[in-house]
Amino acid sequence: MMKLVIVLLVLLYSVVSYATPPLEISREKVKLQFFIDEQGRPLYAVLFNGRDVVKPSAMGFILETDTGFYKNFSLINVERKVVDETWKPVWGECSTIRNNYEQLTVHLKHGSGKLLDIVFRVFADGVGFRYEFPRQSGLIYFVVKEECSQFKLAGNHKAFWIPGDFDSNEYAYTHSLLSEVNNTPVVRAATDIAVRTVTDSLAVQTPLMLKTADGLYLNIHEAALLNYPAMQLHVDKKEFVLSSNLVPDAYNNKAYLHAPTHTPWRTILVSDKAADLLGSKTILNLNEPPTEQGLSWIKPMKFVGVWWEMQTGKSTWNYSDYADSVNTDGQLIPNGRHGANTANVKRYIDFAATNKIGGVLVEGWDRGWEDWFGNWKENVFDFVTPYPDFNVKEITEYARSKGVTMIMHHETSGSATNYERQLDTAFRFMQQFGYPAVKTGYVGRIVPRGEHHDGQWMVNHYERVLQQGMRYHVMVDAHEPPRPTGLQRTYPNFMACEAARGNEYHAFSNGNAPDHETILPFTRLMGGPMDYTPGIFKLTGYAPGMPDRSVHSTLAKQLALYVTLYSPVEMVADLPENYEAKPDAFQFIKDVPVDWDTTRILEAEPGDYITIARKGKGTNNWFIGAITDENARSTTLLLNFLDKGKKYKATLYEDGAGANWKTNPAAYSIRTITVDSTTKLKLALVAGGGTAISIMQIDQ
Amino acid sequence: MMKLVIVLLVLLYSVVSYATPPLEISREKVKLQFFIDEQGRPLYAVLFNGRDVVKPSAMGFILETDTGFYKNFSLINVERKVVDETWKPVWGECSTIRNNYEQLTVHLKHGSGKLLDIVFRVFADGVGFRYEFPRQSGLIYFVVKEECSQFKLAGNHKAFWIPGDFDSNEYAYTHSLLSEVNNTPVVRAATDIAVRTVTDSLAVQTPLMLKTADGLYLNIHEAALLNYPAMQLHVDKKEFVLSSNLVPDAYNNKAYLHAPTHTPWRTILVSDKAADLLGSKTILNLNEPPTEQGLSWIKPMKFVGVWWEMQTGKSTWNYSDYADSVNTDGQLIPNGRHGANTANVKRYIDFAATNKIGGVLVEGWDRGWEDWFGNWKENVFDFVTPYPDFNVKEITEYARSKGVTMIMHHETSGSATNYERQLDTAFRFMQQFGYPAVKTGYVGRIVPRGEHHDGQWMVNHYERVLQQGMRYHVMVDAHEPPRPTGLQRTYPNFMACEAARGNEYHAFSNGNAPDHETILPFTRLMGGPMDYTPGIFKLTGYAPGMPDRSVHSTLAKQLALYVTLYSPVEMVADLPENYEAKPDAFQFIKDVPVDWDTTRILEAEPGDYITIARKGKGTNNWFIGAITDENARSTTLLLNFLDKGKKYKATLYEDGAGANWKTNPAAYSIRTITVDSTTKLKLALVAGGGTAISIMQIDQ
Repeated sequence: MMKLVIVLLVLLYSVVSYATPPLEISREKVKLQFFIDEQGRPLYAVLFNGRDVVKPSAMGFILETDTGFYKNFSLINVERKVVDETWKPVWGECSTIRNNYEQLTVHLKHGSGKLLDIVFRVFADGVGFRYEFPRQSGLIYFVVKEECSQFKLAGNHKAFWIPGDFDSNEYAYTHSLLSEVNNTPVVRAATDIAVRTVTDSLAVQTPLMLKTADGLYLNIHEAALLNYPAMQLHVDKKEFVLSSNLVPDAYNNKAYLHAPTHTPWRTILVSDKAADLLGSKTILNLNEPPTEQGLSWIKPMKFVGVWWEMQTGKSTWNYSDYADSVNTDGQLIPNGRHGANTANVKRYIDFAATNKIGGVLVEGWDRGWEDWFGNWKENVFDFVTPYPDFNVKEITEYARSKGVTMIMHHETSGSATNYERQLDTAFRFMQQFGYPAVKTGYVGRIVPRGEHHDGQWMVNHYERVLQQGMRYHVMVDAHEPPRPTGLQRTYPNFMACEAARGNEYHAFSNGNAPDHETILPFTRLMGGPMDYTPGIFKLTGYAPGMPDRSVHSTLAKQLALYVTLYSPVEMVADLPENYEAKPDAFQFIKDVPVDWDTTRILEAEPGDYITIARKGKGTNNWFIGAITDENARSTTLLLNFLDKGKKYKATLYEDGAGANWKTNPAAYSIRTITVDSTTKLKLALVAGGGTAISIMQIDQ
Repeated sequence: MMKLVIVLLVLLYSVVSYATPPLEISREKVKLQFFIDEQGRPLYAVLFNGRDVVKPSAMGFILETDTGFYKNFSLINVERKVVDETWKPVWGECSTIRNNYEQLTVHLKHGSGKLLDIVFRVFADGVGFRYEFPRQSGLIYFVVKEECSQFKLAGNHKAFWIPGDFDSNEYAYTHSLLSEVNNTPVVRAATDIAVRTVTDSLAVQTPLMLKTADGLYLNIHEAALLNYPAMQLHVDKKEFVLSSNLVPDAYNNKAYLHAPTHTPWRTILVSDKAADLLGSKTILNLNEPPTEQGLSWIKPMKFVGVWWEMQTGKSTWNYSDYADSVNTDGQLIPNGRHGANTANVKRYIDFAATNKIGGVLVEGWDRGWEDWFGNWKENVFDFVTPYPDFNVKEITEYARSKGVTMIMHHETSGSATNYERQLDTAFRFMQQFGYPAVKTGYVGRIVPRGEHHDGQWMVNHYERVLQQGMRYHVMVDAHEPPRPTGLQRTYPNFMACEAARGNEYHAFSNGNAPDHETILPFTRLMGGPMDYTPGIFKLTGYAPGMPDRSVHSTLAKQLALYVTLYSPVEMVADLPENYEAKPDAFQFIKDVPVDWDTTRILEAEPGDYITIARKGKGTNNWFIGAITDENARSTTLLLNFLDKGKKYKATLYEDGAGANWKTNPAAYSIRTITVDSTTKLKLALVAGGGTAISIMQIDQ
């Protein structure tokens, strides 16, 4: 693989001479050029306001049957169109989305006679392109050995990156120049990640966030990843060329395709304002609308869970301490610390009902947790057999009586074959007991052995689970999937996923740096909502036996995350007793919506700060989240997005006197003021701090 | 892998010096010795009548965690027992089976502290041994990198072998000395085999049949292959040591195990009479009895099928010539040659009903055959969607009205993941339409990609299908599975399988040598019944456009195969019209049973000839099959197995005057005589010929 990539790079570093004049399309400041050079290589370039963003860059493939499917092409036809439409997502950051682009389709013919189309869409904030393989007799079933898409950048940009790992996205971010990329020490140090598979020390994951020396913000990712492996990027540290690296299978093949078909979209977002990237809907727009109607069963919600107590070691997922710890009747001997017991679950249900939190997740309810991890075991869970102390019927009925939704948990341990065999049975079980949502998990090495979390087979697996969810009216929150690519448009039951380093790392490892949440929206969240599990109130002393462990955030910042990290399913992650100890601060979590009419990115700088205002769906109430990195920060917000002439009651949840993430995270203060569209709010965020604000319209 | 094997061989070639005196067990002429040498290596040896059969040979493993798990052992305990019992198979070659062995269990402790047991069973005709990993805290989940079992033979024996291929058993047999083994030219020439994966030119498949210079017959195989890869044998051509090669997965791991557990049995059968090996029940005896009761739904039967007409090119499996050949309504455009159409199926049903043949198999009934093969396609069939000209309800009802059993066909194309996803649905469909039997197929490269037909994952897959069959009361006839290992004892619904080069190769390739069927019972059939599909009557001119193609057998030999190749499901493979053209010869097929009370191997020599007599279950009628290789042969049979004093009508179906397999296969003659237990029958078999005899008791 590496050898081929290097060949390509060398080819491209030669001077490009154009066999055809460039074709161009543009939207506002963004321009896309396409041409074919004298060797028949298709090339594209992206400009922003006349400046090079992507210099002429290679396209094409190494196919099993055509190793030179990136050159020797001729242009046989061109199509153009302009689209300007709006659509309404089932849920999201805003209730209406505009989809406006100019499209260029180039129909190419290879020297072998095979056909390839490349479709470009230019939006006001970037470019998407994908390859389409038309129906043709000479290319029906075929194997992609590698995709040769390149992104030849204009300089040695600053990058926010994680390693290109075939099995994990749960790394901390590194800020570095492209010339400094080297993932080896990062991977080696990440002993808190269960499965790491990195074969190229210069590979980084997408979405890759970049900032140029002259103030442009770039984001490279993909949209609509279906039936294809995830794309990672190999970094040329001297020429600043990024080359697509597709996640391989057991035979180092990348994709098995059947024409007519197409790849996912490769996306390049660009702006001179970082905030504009956060507001971009281009990746969503490049996904297809859902094929199903009648999606009112899909309901955003907050949820609590029997979960943080296991993460922090207070209780256990497993019922017994050893899989073979059985009594004379062959029954597991309880360890006395099992979290998912009926009484404890009822306590969470009571808490959710009292505080109008929609859902209750329970992990560790089903048999198998004694030896589920690290054994590469295939038949690890059956998804229908509860532990003896988890009375599924009693819990279901209790939750229903309290108006609370139970959320199913399916940990697969990475054994996707086992999950697929049980899928019908598992979803019928959910239907029988009224679980309209499931959190799935894939912690561990993948079975089928030889596949990876982010390869084509698993991409198809995750889609099969989403399709099963659509059939059974089940919302899905997938943990350990590939990072998302806007598929929540096509599958609106794909509520959220993990695919990044979540808040949970504060529970069982050294946690996340204070700037972590200022980077996530520019990287991982570009593709879709994350189940980050914010809202930890007890920021120190939560992990038995680990007195030094702390959440690297102030309490006020934990609140602000409910606004800055969008998800239609937001966990209220801490223990009920920790919320009950701080009812005034908890009020914000009770108030904050998970579905929005409008979103304004007020200010943002990756790695530094983010401030976002959102209006709750169907209300006139606004919520603001402001967070900062390890540096304290003052800022002034103009509330000019409020309805003119109307009065609002603003409640500010701020870092308390002397607060900071490191030595005093818990201090917070709350104040209430009346505001209107002329108000200027001065905020002071401490190091690692944040501010959360609710702005409720005062009835007049 | 190879490197490790060589290391082991070198170790063993050094002179063995014994740290412990040998432990011995024996039964009749067979003796087993076990000892541990000074390096702590467990060793075993097998003797027959005092002659070396297996000289001191290595045992043990390379584990992922213990690469030297074949030395540094000490003996901590020994157990012995003798078992002598009889049991009744649900179906088979005889109605009662004696299981008589002496057992030795050696409890070993490795230098690492880990425990390993080796269990030996000695029967009158051979030895079985297996490894058992007891429950222990130091070894719970573990990975076998290789099994180090060796078989150090006493000389350069003659071997009947096929290549050790991870994906196919469908090779022609080579006869050679062990010193001449080299599978490379065999594999290279076998272009008629869909998928070939051979990584070791010195690897041969088991059952491996051997004949020593001094007239001993040896057979090396395994019994009860479950949750483990198939064992192949690497041949040391100088020292005549066979070393186990387990079929690998994508990571070149061999088995993922969870103690307590055990391996399959390694079997060494030995006799100075070839016929005794054919009568051996040792492999069956080493399998576990079924756990289920009430197995009367399992019914041996003969069956016809819409099949040979596709194999020979007269009709097609596919309905359309191309997958994308659709009309304006998106429906497939028929090619007009689709075999599985309702009218044609009814013709077969009528034929079966008229001739009291139990079942009708129909291949090519379900959508997907246009592009099922060679594309490594995952979602290839759904197993429930018939082509538009196959009316499943009408056919079901018609078959039921005629008292004929429909046999389902599930071709997976090797895509086991797809089949597993559909398994519940597919078996419910069978239940709905009353199909009590299924022929499965795995032609193609395996999905999950990285797995092989004969690896652990697929071994487990085939077992899952058998288990599904037990749940749904469905009998299974698996094509392209690993070669069988006696599992039909544990899963009596495992009626037969292919796993060898069947008669079908005469339809689409250069066919089988005339001695092929004289080798199969000594090799492939040692593990269980084969769906060989005998009974071709039109032996030339059957393949349109291929005038030179012929079945390498006389017609009389085709009849004899119903006796010499035992299966509880025997196909009546030719077209109805070809049987209707020869009703006198067809009478034997109508008469011959598929389930037996008694079997007598009258004479046998691998590669030369086999003569077997069997008594139909619950009758006093005997059937004899006698076949020869490319050489004509005369023999005299003593019918002293008939009841003394009773008279029988014997009908002899013999090669006709001038018949031979090459130039005149079709000539046959039939004669009827009266016989009793004193009769001596002189038979004259032509080159590639045979004789079939029915011996019906005359009511007195």
